[in-house]
Amino acid sequence: MAKSKFEYVRQFEEVDKLLPNCWIVMRLDGRGFHKFADAHHFTKPNDTRGLGLMNFCAACVMEEFKDVVLAYGQSDEYSFVFRRETTQFSRRASKLMTNMVSLFSSCFVFHWSKYFPDQQLLYPPAFDGRIVLYPSNQNLRDYLSWRQADCHINNLYNTCFWKLVQEGGLTNTQAEERLRGTFSSDKNELLFSDFGINYNNEPEWFRKGSVLIWKTVDEVTVNRCKSKETDEEIEREVVRKRRKVELLHTDIIGEEFWTDRPEILAKS
Amino acid sequence: MAKSKFEYVRQFEEVDKLLPNCWIVMRLDGRGFHKFADAHHFTKPNDTRGLGLMNFCAACVMEEFKDVVLAYGQSDEYSFVFRRETTQFSRRASKLMTNMVSLFSSCFVFHWSKYFPDQQLLYPPAFDGRIVLYPSNQNLRDYLSWRQADCHINNLYNTCFWKLVQEGGLTNTQAEERLRGTFSSDKNELLFSDFGINYNNEPEWFRKGSVLIWKTVDEVTVNRCKSKETDEEIEREVVRKRRKVELLHTDIIGEEFWTDRPEILAKS
Amino acid sequence: MAKSKFEYVRQFEEVDKLLPNCWIVMRLDGRGFHKFADAHHFTKPNDTRGLGLMNFCAACVMEEFKDVVLAYGQSDEYSFVFRRETTQFSRRASKLMTNMVSLFSSCFVFHWSKYFPDQQLLYPPAFDGRIVLYPSNQNLRDYLSWRQADCHINNLYNTCFWKLVQEGGLTNTQAEERLRGTFSSDKNELLFSDFGINYNNEPEWFRKGSVLIWKTVDEVTVNRCKSKETDEEIEREVVRKRRKVELLHTDIIGEEFWTDRPEILAKS
Amino acid sequence: MAKSKFEYVRQFEEVDKLLPNCWIVMRLDGRGFHKFADAHHFTKPNDTRGLGLMNFCAACVMEEFKDVVLAYGQSDEYSFVFRRETTQFSRRASKLMTNMVSLFSSCFVFHWSKYFPDQQLLYPPAFDGRIVLYPSNQNLRDYLSWRQADCHINNLYNTCFWKLVQEGGLTNTQAEERLRGTFSSDKNELLFSDFGINYNNEPEWFRKGSVLIWKTVDEVTVNRCKSKETDEEIEREVVRKRRKVELLHTDIIGEEFWTDRPEILAKS
Repeated sequence: MAKSKFEYVRQFEEVDKLLPNCWIVMRLDGRGFHKFADAHHFTKPNDTRGLGLMNFCAACVMEEFKDVVLAYGQSDEYSFVFRRETTQFSRRASKLMTNMVSLFSSCFVFHWSKYFPDQQLLYPPAFDGRIVLYPSNQNLRDYLSWRQADCHINNLYNTCFWKLVQEGGLTNTQAEERLRGTFSSDKNELLFSDFGINYNNEPEWFRKGSVLIWKTVDEVTVNRCKSKETDEEIEREVVRKRRKVELLHTDIIGEEFWTDRPEILAKS
Repeated sequence: MAKSKFEYVRQFEEVDKLLPNCWIVMRLDGRGFHKFADAHHFTKPNDTRGLGLMNFCAACVMEEFKDVVLAYGQSDEYSFVFRRETTQFSRRASKLMTNMVSLFSSCFVFHWSKYFPDQQLLYPPAFDGRIVLYPSNQNLRDYLSWRQADCHINNLYNTCFWKLVQEGGLTNTQAEERLRGTFSSDKNELLFSDFGINYNNEPEWFRKGSVLIWKTVDEVTVNRCKSKETDEEIEREVVRKRRKVELLHTDIIGEEFWTDRPEILAKS
Repeated sequence: MAKSKFEYVRQFEEVDKLLPNCWIVMRLDGRGFHKFADAHHFTKPNDTRGLGLMNFCAACVMEEFKDVVLAYGQSDEYSFVFRRETTQFSRRASKLMTNMVSLFSSCFVFHWSKYFPDQQLLYPPAFDGRIVLYPSNQNLRDYLSWRQADCHINNLYNTCFWKLVQEGGLTNTQAEERLRGTFSSDKNELLFSDFGINYNNEPEWFRKGSVLIWKTVDEVTVNRCKSKETDEEIEREVVRKRRKVELLHTDIIGEEFWTDRPEILAKS
Repeated sequence: MAKSKFEYVRQFEEVDKLLPNCWIVMRLDGRGFHKFADAHHFTKPNDTRGLGLMNFCAACVMEEFKDVVLAYGQSDEYSFVFRRETTQFSRRASKLMTNMVSLFSSCFVFHWSKYFPDQQLLYPPAFDGRIVLYPSNQNLRDYLSWRQADCHINNLYNTCFWKLVQEGGLTNTQAEERLRGTFSSDKNELLFSDFGINYNNEPEWFRKGSVLIWKTVDEVTVNRCKSKETDEEIEREVVRKRRKVELLHTDIIGEEFWTDRPEILAKS
C-alpha cells in the first residue's frame, strides 16, 4: 500500500501560472439560468431579489479575495478584476477560478433566504467560470465597457419585450417579431410613445449593472479603560481605517469614473 | 454604447481544449476544511455525516455529468473520472472544472441539513478544483491507487492519533510525538496492544474511502390502460433499463475491482 | 549594471512540459517550397535529389535525437516520433521543436551540394515545426497513416498532372481542369490508357514516402595488439552492437510493418 | 487509402495563439557553442567573424519578418522583439519560433564562408528558441536590459580571463581561481594594473552587444525616358522611402536610446 509507487502520477498535473503583470479577470455565469429564473418566479425583466443576491455573493467573494480591485455584475454574470501584481494562489489559473466560483455558489445557496424569504430554493444552481488576461489598462477598461454595453443592450431589449408582453398583451413570439431589426432609437421611441416611459429614467441598477469597489472608511470603536491617575473609568475612541466593499450603479465606460478613482488602476 | 467597438476583447480568451483520448480527472478539495471541521464539531477521526454529505453531493454531480464513469472520495476531496471520449463542454478545461466544483459546492450547502440536522451551517464553504489528464488505463488506475493509498495512510494515522488523544489522555502534541517515525506495522501494533483494536476490522468506509460507479437497474413501472377488445381496464408492467449511481467502499488498487467491471475502462 | 534588478523578467517564461506517457510527434514543413522547388529546377513530380537530401537530414536529426523511434517523410515534410517515455529536454515543447527544426535546416544547407552537385543553393530555405501528442498507439498509427495516405493522394494526382503537361502537351490550367472531380480509379485509368503506366509499378519511394527506423547491426572492428606471450602482433576482431538508421519505402498503414517490428511501439 | 478516416488526428493539435497586445520576444541560443567555437578556432574572448555572422543572420531574419522592431544579440544568442500588434502567423507560438530559428540556422550555414573565408564549417550547428511575452513597455525594456547587463558581466569576466591566460601565462583553472569572488571594480582594476587596459576603451561591440533597428532611408533611382515633347532622352530621379536594418553597438539600458527613438515602442 506504499503511496510512493503511485506518486509519479502527480507529474501529469500541468503548471498553469498566469502571465505576470496582466490584469486577471475571472467572469462567472449562471448555468441554465433562464430555466432557474422561471422555476423560481423571477420578476421580468429585472428581479431585484436575484440581483441583490448576486451583488451580496460578489461582495463576499471580494471580502475573501482582497486583491480584487473591482467587480462588475449584470444579469446572472459577475466579473472580478484582480490587480496586475496579485500573487493570490501564485497566479494559478485553476485555483483562482475554482475557488472563486465555488465560494460564490455556496454563498448563493447560503444567503438565498435573505433575499428570497417567500420563495424556496428548489434545486442547487451552478455557475461556470473563466479567466481572461488583459495586458493594458485600456484593454481592461474595454473589457468592462463591453460588459456594461452588453447590459445596456440587453436591458433595453428586455424592457421593451416585457412591456409588450405584460402590458401590450402580445405573446412572446409577437413581441420578438415586433422588436426584430429595431435599433436603440426605435426601442426608446416605442417605450415612450406606447408606454409613456423615458428609458433614461429607468433605474440605473438595471441600465448600468452593479459595480463593486473598495472604499476606505474610518471605523470608530470605543475602548473603555481605567484612568491610571484617577482610577475612573474612561472611554476612548479609536479610529481605524478599514476597507469596505461599496456598491455603485454607475457608468464605467466614460472617463469620469476612472479619473475620480485613480487608485483602481494605479500600481499598488 | 456600441458593443462592437469593445468586442475585440473576446480575442484575449484562451482556448483550453483538453487533449482528446485521455482520461480526464477533475479533483476537488475543501479549502480550509480543518477549520471548517472544527467549527462544525466534526467527529474525529471520521465524521459519517460529513462523509455522507460529500458522497451525496458527488452523486448529484455524477447525475448531472453522465460521462463521469467513476468518482472516488476520501476526507474532503473527490475525484471525478470522465470517459476518454467525452465531449462534455467540448472538453474545455475551465468549463469542466468550474461547473463541477460550483455544482458540488451549492449541493453541499443545499443538502447540508439532511446530513447535519442538529448542526447549523455557520458559513459558506469553498472547494478548489483541478484537472489532470491520464493517457493510459494504467496511469488512471495508478492515479486512483495513489488516492486510495493516501486514504489508508491518513486514516491509519488519524485512527491512532485520536485514540491516543481521546482514550489515551495524550495532548495533540504528545500524540504527534508518539507517532513520529512510526511505520504502518507500528501503528497497527499500537492500536492492537494499547486499545484492543484490529485495524482491519475498522469500517471499510474509513479505510478504503468511497467509490461511485454506475449500475444499470430495471425500473418497473405499471401502466394502466383500457383493453381494445374488452374495454376492461388492464395493467401492464413496463421494464426500463436505468443507470443509477452506486456507492461502494472497496479496494480499487487490486485487479479484482476492474476485472469484475470491465465496462468502466472499456471504450464506450 | 546589476543584472539582478532585471532578472525578474525570467518569470514571464512559460513552462511548456508535454504530458507524460504520450507519443510526441514533431512535424516540420518547408516554408514556401513551391517557389523554392521552382527556383532550384526540381524535377516534377518527384525530385530524387531533393527527397534524398530530406532523408539524409532526417537521418542526421535521428542520430542526434536517439529517442526518436521512427521518422516519416514525404514531399517537403518530415515527422519525427519520440518514444512515449522520452525525457529529452525534459519534454519541453519549445526546446524540442526548435532544436530539431534548426538542426534539420542547417543540415539541409550543409549537405546541399552532396545532393545537388550541379545546382547552386540560391538562398537559405526555412522550415516550420509543430508538436502534436498522441495518447495511444492507435492514435499514433492513425497519424502516420494520415500522412502516408496524403502522400499517396498527392503523388497520384501529381503523377497524372505532370504526365498531362509534360507528355500530353496540356497547359497547367488545362491539366487541372482535366483532373477536377476525378476519383483515384479515374486517375489510375488515365495513366494506363493515355500513358501506358501502371501506377502500382511506380517507385515505392514516390508512392509510399520514406520511413526511417533504427536497425541494430554488428559492427566489426579489428584491434591490433601485441601478444603478451610471444610479443607478436596479433589481430583481434571486436564485434559491437550498434544502432543505425535504416531507410525504407514501405507501407505503414497495414498491420504487417508493425507486427514485424514490435519493438517500435513497445515500451522501452 | 481514404485520408478522411485518419484525419481525426488533426484534432490533437493544440491551439497556441499568443495573448494579444503583448510584446513577443523570440530568443535563440546556440546549442553546444562552447564546443562549436573551439572546433572552429574562434578567437577569445570575442571573435568578430562569428559575431559578424550572427548579426548578418539576424538582419536576414528581420528582413523576412518585418514586424520585428528591434533585435539584440550577444555571444551566441539573439533576441527578436515583435511589435505588440503583430499578426504574423496569427501569433501562433510554434510557427513563430520554428520559422525564425530555422531561417537563422540555414542563413548561418549559407553565409558562413563570407565571414569565415579561411575556416571551413565542420558540421551543421543548431540553435534553440523560445518565446516570452511582455505585457508592458517597462517589462520589455527590463528584458533587454537584462540581456545587455548579462553581456557586460560576461564580457568583463571573459576579457580578464583570457588576458590572464593569453598574456598572464595562467592555466584556465588558475585564471578561474584568480577571478573567483571578484567584483566588477576588482576586474576593472586588474585589467588596468596588470595589463594597462581601460575596460571602458574596449570596443562597444563587445561591451554592449549588437542592436538591430529599422532605419528609413531615401533610395534614389534614376529613370530614363523619352520626353513627349522633344523626343529627347531625359533622366528623372525617383526618391523612394525604404526601411533598412541598421546595426548599432550602444547602450539600451538608459533612457537616451529610447527617447531618441520613440517610434520603436510606439503603437504602430
